[in-house]
Amino acid sequence: MAKLKYGMVGGGPGALIGNAHRRAIALDNTAELAAGVFSRTQEKTMAMGAELGIAPERCYKDYAEMAEKEASREDGIDFVVIVTPNHTHYEIAKAFLEAGIHVACDKPLTTDAAKAEELKEIADARGLLFMVTYTYTGYVAMKLMRGLIRQGEIGVIRTVMAEYPQGWLYDENNSGGKQGEWRCDPARSGRVNCLGDLGTHVENAVATVTGLKIKRVLAKMDVVVPGRRLDDNDQILVEYEGGATGINWTSQFAIGCDNSLRLRIYGSKGTLLWFQENPEEVTLIREDGIPNIIKRGYSAVPPEAARYGRLPSGHPEGWLESMANLYDSFGMCIDAKKAGDFERGMIDYPTLEEGIAGLKYVEACLESNEKGNVWVSL
Amino acid sequence: MAKLKYGMVGGGPGALIGNAHRRAIALDNTAELAAGVFSRTQEKTMAMGAELGIAPERCYKDYAEMAEKEASREDGIDFVVIVTPNHTHYEIAKAFLEAGIHVACDKPLTTDAAKAEELKEIADARGLLFMVTYTYTGYVAMKLMRGLIRQGEIGVIRTVMAEYPQGWLYDENNSGGKQGEWRCDPARSGRVNCLGDLGTHVENAVATVTGLKIKRVLAKMDVVVPGRRLDDNDQILVEYEGGATGINWTSQFAIGCDNSLRLRIYGSKGTLLWFQENPEEVTLIREDGIPNIIKRGYSAVPPEAARYGRLPSGHPEGWLESMANLYDSFGMCIDAKKAGDFERGMIDYPTLEEGIAGLKYVEACLESNEKGNVWVSL
Amino acid sequence: MAKLKYGMVGGGPGALIGNAHRRAIALDNTAELAAGVFSRTQEKTMAMGAELGIAPERCYKDYAEMAEKEASREDGIDFVVIVTPNHTHYEIAKAFLEAGIHVACDKPLTTDAAKAEELKEIADARGLLFMVTYTYTGYVAMKLMRGLIRQGEIGVIRTVMAEYPQGWLYDENNSGGKQGEWRCDPARSGRVNCLGDLGTHVENAVATVTGLKIKRVLAKMDVVVPGRRLDDNDQILVEYEGGATGINWTSQFAIGCDNSLRLRIYGSKGTLLWFQENPEEVTLIREDGIPNIIKRGYSAVPPEAARYGRLPSGHPEGWLESMANLYDSFGMCIDAKKAGDFERGMIDYPTLEEGIAGLKYVEACLESNEKGNVWVSL
Amino acid sequence: MAKLKYGMVGGGPGALIGNAHRRAIALDNTAELAAGVFSRTQEKTMAMGAELGIAPERCYKDYAEMAEKEASREDGIDFVVIVTPNHTHYEIAKAFLEAGIHVACDKPLTTDAAKAEELKEIADARGLLFMVTYTYTGYVAMKLMRGLIRQGEIGVIRTVMAEYPQGWLYDENNSGGKQGEWRCDPARSGRVNCLGDLGTHVENAVATVTGLKIKRVLAKMDVVVPGRRLDDNDQILVEYEGGATGINWTSQFAIGCDNSLRLRIYGSKGTLLWFQENPEEVTLIREDGIPNIIKRGYSAVPPEAARYGRLPSGHPEGWLESMANLYDSFGMCIDAKKAGDFERGMIDYPTLEEGIAGLKYVEACLESNEKGNVWVSL
Repeated sequence: MAKLKYGMVGGGPGALIGNAHRRAIALDNTAELAAGVFSRTQEKTMAMGAELGIAPERCYKDYAEMAEKEASREDGIDFVVIVTPNHTHYEIAKAFLEAGIHVACDKPLTTDAAKAEELKEIADARGLLFMVTYTYTGYVAMKLMRGLIRQGEIGVIRTVMAEYPQGWLYDENNSGGKQGEWRCDPARSGRVNCLGDLGTHVENAVATVTGLKIKRVLAKMDVVVPGRRLDDNDQILVEYEGGATGINWTSQFAIGCDNSLRLRIYGSKGTLLWFQENPEEVTLIREDGIPNIIKRGYSAVPPEAARYGRLPSGHPEGWLESMANLYDSFGMCIDAKKAGDFERGMIDYPTLEEGIAGLKYVEACLESNEKGNVWVSL
Repeated sequence: MAKLKYGMVGGGPGALIGNAHRRAIALDNTAELAAGVFSRTQEKTMAMGAELGIAPERCYKDYAEMAEKEASREDGIDFVVIVTPNHTHYEIAKAFLEAGIHVACDKPLTTDAAKAEELKEIADARGLLFMVTYTYTGYVAMKLMRGLIRQGEIGVIRTVMAEYPQGWLYDENNSGGKQGEWRCDPARSGRVNCLGDLGTHVENAVATVTGLKIKRVLAKMDVVVPGRRLDDNDQILVEYEGGATGINWTSQFAIGCDNSLRLRIYGSKGTLLWFQENPEEVTLIREDGIPNIIKRGYSAVPPEAARYGRLPSGHPEGWLESMANLYDSFGMCIDAKKAGDFERGMIDYPTLEEGIAGLKYVEACLESNEKGNVWVSL
Repeated sequence: MAKLKYGMVGGGPGALIGNAHRRAIALDNTAELAAGVFSRTQEKTMAMGAELGIAPERCYKDYAEMAEKEASREDGIDFVVIVTPNHTHYEIAKAFLEAGIHVACDKPLTTDAAKAEELKEIADARGLLFMVTYTYTGYVAMKLMRGLIRQGEIGVIRTVMAEYPQGWLYDENNSGGKQGEWRCDPARSGRVNCLGDLGTHVENAVATVTGLKIKRVLAKMDVVVPGRRLDDNDQILVEYEGGATGINWTSQFAIGCDNSLRLRIYGSKGTLLWFQENPEEVTLIREDGIPNIIKRGYSAVPPEAARYGRLPSGHPEGWLESMANLYDSFGMCIDAKKAGDFERGMIDYPTLEEGIAGLKYVEACLESNEKGNVWVSL
Repeated sequence: MAKLKYGMVGGGPGALIGNAHRRAIALDNTAELAAGVFSRTQEKTMAMGAELGIAPERCYKDYAEMAEKEASREDGIDFVVIVTPNHTHYEIAKAFLEAGIHVACDKPLTTDAAKAEELKEIADARGLLFMVTYTYTGYVAMKLMRGLIRQGEIGVIRTVMAEYPQGWLYDENNSGGKQGEWRCDPARSGRVNCLGDLGTHVENAVATVTGLKIKRVLAKMDVVVPGRRLDDNDQILVEYEGGATGINWTSQFAIGCDNSLRLRIYGSKGTLLWFQENPEEVTLIREDGIPNIIKRGYSAVPPEAARYGRLPSGHPEGWLESMANLYDSFGMCIDAKKAGDFERGMIDYPTLEEGIAGLKYVEACLESNEKGNVWVSL
């Protein structure tokens, strides 16, 4: 099968996340970058395209032109990667879906759930694939935990302590540079900062690993660092369908926390622990209380998780590999679509459904907080 | 100065906590056990007293007799240690206070705050000392953190993540033996189980280390393990006076957690981390993000904390030393009382004030939970 | 049975190790201190004795008087604890053995193996017990590892990486205070410093846990810190009988190492890891590569190790408990001697045999080093 | 500047290391794969080339043809990557050097130091660059440690404890699959197994980080697992020029060790600790004994190390990034060569010098071991 081709919207010079997506795709040689709108001016897009080895005629002036022209090429892109600011995702994604092109889009998917559901309708109607890049779910460890829970290793889940503190915005004189400024500005970020950036990852990670659905939330979203206008510390009580409970905590001023997504899942027969900064280890504790540390590459990892490993155990894989794992599954599904043998069960990446769930979670938390920390059902 | 003498109420054969208090006092040779009511029958008390080397005439039939007779002896006990079930603390403590004898009493102090305040009135009126044995505050590490916070090392405290999960009661077929049965039985434990046993330690640890006062709580106290009738998982949102926030989590079914009291304190200029199962280390993180691990015995530990160490760093001290540190300060204060040069500033152990605060915390949480998880002011 | 009585030689004011032995014995109420020679002048001994609650007539002018008089009292001491400088152990121990009194003596036992063997002859001839206080072998974890190895959990041992670095003497301007001065002075320490203090612990720990006997050593004993005259860094290749190998490393200038005795034992079917600064955990790794962390108090700890625990898991026990465990077994053996039902199999503490092995190890290392790092058989 | 082009010798289907080199180069888009000899038959090479997107006429029948033809093309490769079995490195590298093409070659460089020196002569004479891919030196942490040592942060180095145990060959029934078989077979591996594979990494890591030169070694190279014929456990005493000492330990049967390269460097003023399985952290301990954990991305990392980071701290980078860092510097040097502004100081990757040092180290160890573990000077 011919190598896949992709285009990118966003990811101009100095853009961390666009660059990360390109690296992740290159890591496995999953697809070749063939088209792009990297910047607001075509001039800059052309320069960036040259650097990236893209033909000049596929460096477009805007996403609409790109969607249209690529859709009409015989050798047009198979999918587009959208790495623009959040509030632009919806329109761009819509344009490519309507042009019949599969989409990979950064999270949060859109600014509200209604728009996200609209995207889902379009994608479903046209049989297009849509990946929302919740990076962390790509880790082998996440798939391992999901598998252990499905096998019943920890019994019935009772409570989930999930958290994702960071420290980079601890400083009222803004330690966060340009990105910090943008995230803390209601004009550009809407009604939510920390919960949108980090809280959605927490919600998604718990849902992916445990399969639990949130029933209701009670959210305390605080604006703590002096001078800030949007939430920078969120402490949220959660009740899941079936009776499990949990706490989701996210913060941007927790000095010493770099990117500290952590899951602690307590069941009736055991416990699972995982920490994103040491992502290749899962700690499983059974009723004897003994921590068992299982690592990528070990025979205890079932094949559906193990297959995402590239290197022998002890040769660390990291964040880019996690992102690459999403593209691995996404690429395989696109190949299957092209070959006509696609089945839903092949999907092992976050889809529009997960993207919508994240937005609904944020909306329920905002409502709870505005009403004075009361329970709000999802 | 003559060696102090103490009596004990409770702590009969097989009683873990009475034995622990005796060991802790013996460790530093702080005081000599001279009298006791160890059991419900005088026969058993006599046997236990013989084993412990106590004169038969000082093995009493009940606490009332002991209080009266010891008070009238010239060589009577200097203080009593009360290690009976919680609901009996009040009457026993009152008897000894009224007999003019200093008291050390296990936590939780009484079954409600009103009774605890009554004890405080009596003790204050008679100039008697009263220690509530929140063991964990005795650790050098706790005193070190308190000192670092007072010095402003982490700036203004913003949020405190405190937790104390255990796993010993995870099993619906009761993994907790006799003690588990007792704790889970409303007839013997009253309205609260997990929060009384563990939650009060959390509240006290945070208060001791940070100096923060709780303004209000929003408590979710769940009864999770099938067949249980009292709370075994408590997830509590806290607001402190001055604006700091926090979460206090306690659980009895968290498999893999032995005795996992953990403090994470995030301030405007730094972070402090501590874990009871590795109690001799404090992690201090300043604005550069670099964890600094400070251990008992290091020159970075200020004298008021360092003075409680017995062994060079690297020679582990543990739980008994922590308890012994409380008795160290308590004994010094009694000596000072006897010598007539006592001053309040000498007290470096938890007092009735801390005991009362714990009970008020529990009462507010119960109210919050009963009203459907709403904010309740303290 | 009446409570045991003991005497002490050494352990005057400010003496760390004497104080530690007293605390360890008091912790379990194993024996009562009844006699002593704490200092070089009787005046100081009397003062110390008063503080410790010893009758004045049992505060002796020297060890010879103490041995003689205590032996002749009906209520004389059951055993003596010798905590004097190393070069005096032999004479003092001999005096008490000849007076028919059991002995507990600090390590290293004597200054050479020949003298130690002489002590053994006397003790054996008189049926007296002799404990050499290699503290670390008292840990529950050490007994757990020994048990796991005996059960064959890690198969045939292949190599043992053992080390005990400290950092307190890193400074050429002597960071070690009085004790540092003494240890580095050939006039007071003889031919060996670091290897005598730390290396003997390493040798003993490996022997106790694995049961392996050393066949030969190749030792590099270096004098590293400027101005020093005795070894402060020892790197030793070891061959054990049966073919296992190992490295023993000890150092006194390893900044950041407090008291970092560490064992890593690699067998044909598994691995055992232990670190003294976190003494309650043993890591067992079987052929699947998964670390299993077993802690004191867990059901996986066999009864012969578990019986030494005092507190539930998660309530840290430390160095003093380890020392107390030695006295626990020693006291039980003395009780059994008195009751006439002693059997060798009861001994669960280091004896003269272990003391002699340590001295032979040191002597072989010295010979190897002097000959230019060649193999020397034991 | 035009994107670099490279060719590969080795790295056919299923070859782990060839694939890893390709991924590492793709990660940063450093160069484009343009030619290759991937297998022993041209048929297989053609198939692999097609998969990798290489023009058929640049899929060669053997390395000699490739060297010749690529050298004569105007758009010929800028460098070749050699990932064939060790004993073939010399001839292949020589062919490309003689064709005027820069070389990146796996370690160990050749089977003996003399051949490696010959390669150096050729490369030097022709002004060609030669990288030996000691992967681990690419980590930001390694460059950070090197910088801290150069700045004098830990003073004069006293002893270096370096080790690299693995466990994959613990099983006498060969747990190591095909690669295990090959490594343990004298016919294919020559005189050395474990020391060549792992020991050279240890030697190189210490040299790179500390700048120390080995003066002499005393090596014990043991053949431990039943049925094996080459060393699988090496315990080596090292003396460095200037007086520092060290131990280098490597093993292939250490169950639980995946890829456990670890450095512990003790100086007169501080200590540095690093562990390859957690590669982004360096622990620096100064005279106060407090561990400072410095991570990639922190402001404490000097620019010459920090520049190799791709992602913010807390987003784990791993082994492939480490390899990619080598290619990053190698690519920059080749660019500079082409631009005519190359200077030796630009080189920040392991060169032939390091490759030669590794071989001399192995040869000295073999001699020491064969003579009965005596000192051999380098």
